[in-house]
Amino acid sequence: MKKQPSSPQNAARYPVGFAPRTSIEQVEEGHEFAPKFGSDGLVACITSDAGSGEVLMLGYMNKEALEKTIITGEAHYWSRSREVIWHKGATSGLVQEVVEMRVDDDQDAIWLRVKVSGSGASCHVGYRSCFYRKVPIAAERANSDALMFVEHDKQFDPVEVYGDAPNPTIL
Amino acid sequence: MKKQPSSPQNAARYPVGFAPRTSIEQVEEGHEFAPKFGSDGLVACITSDAGSGEVLMLGYMNKEALEKTIITGEAHYWSRSREVIWHKGATSGLVQEVVEMRVDDDQDAIWLRVKVSGSGASCHVGYRSCFYRKVPIAAERANSDALMFVEHDKQFDPVEVYGDAPNPTIL
Repeated sequence: MKKQPSSPQNAARYPVGFAPRTSIEQVEEGHEFAPKFGSDGLVACITSDAGSGEVLMLGYMNKEALEKTIITGEAHYWSRSREVIWHKGATSGLVQEVVEMRVDDDQDAIWLRVKVSGSGASCHVGYRSCFYRKVPIAAERANSDALMFVEHDKQFDPVEVYGDAPNPTIL
Repeated sequence: MKKQPSSPQNAARYPVGFAPRTSIEQVEEGHEFAPKFGSDGLVACITSDAGSGEVLMLGYMNKEALEKTIITGEAHYWSRSREVIWHKGATSGLVQEVVEMRVDDDQDAIWLRVKVSGSGASCHVGYRSCFYRKVPIAAERANSDALMFVEHDKQFDPVEVYGDAPNPTIL
């Protein structure tokens, strides 16, 4: 990937240049961004709160969502249930401002550290994190294997925010 | 899912009972663990350091890997490149002890908070986290869009630890 000229105009150049994947050394040890999109055209994206470190959600990005996130500095995903580009917060106002983007060793996963505006929630059910329930493991299962709620209060009322939009959860 | 009798023997009962998925309310608001495995039989798993909150890796689990993780309290994954159950640390000694397991709203993603033994590394390239490189975004791209190394020193020598085992990265 060529070094960009140091002008803000060029920084916003679209589309973002993704490098072709040429060797394991290039992908793992190099400085070229060469993301690997799966057979479904998507790369997984972990999103955590930049302040607390709490994992907020796991989303997916297609090429366009990844480009938009890089250019705007706000998280965009591909909604697998609605099959559209999804600017997180466009409906709810809970925009995720990206503080840092990282990529993993084989470049098939993205990690975003974000600041969330408004109530700070990222989950369509109304909780701060989508991971609001704990699964008992090992000795914890002696008493019960039921899920335990780690968050007890919703940050917003989903009906108020999303109205009658279809629920993205698929059975 | 039935409440387990309170005996450690039963806590280790195998296989773990996963509930059928019957309604959005059950999946999102309930206490039953009803994970959704994709068409490839896998569920995504985010693994972070329980102390620092740093995201270490994104792995995948099939039903057996998820069951083994729940029963043993040590992270097991499905290796998509080697197509085997993968007890993390079996080769390297860098076992991931699960401090907490969480599940997300629609139950198609797992989050493990772990303590890593030995050098504390979780990445086959030798770094602590697989996410050892930062991707410049928005105004950061004005100077360069090259990946930046966030970790500078490897925690172990991959050749020493893995010998001539095939590299899991697929181009």
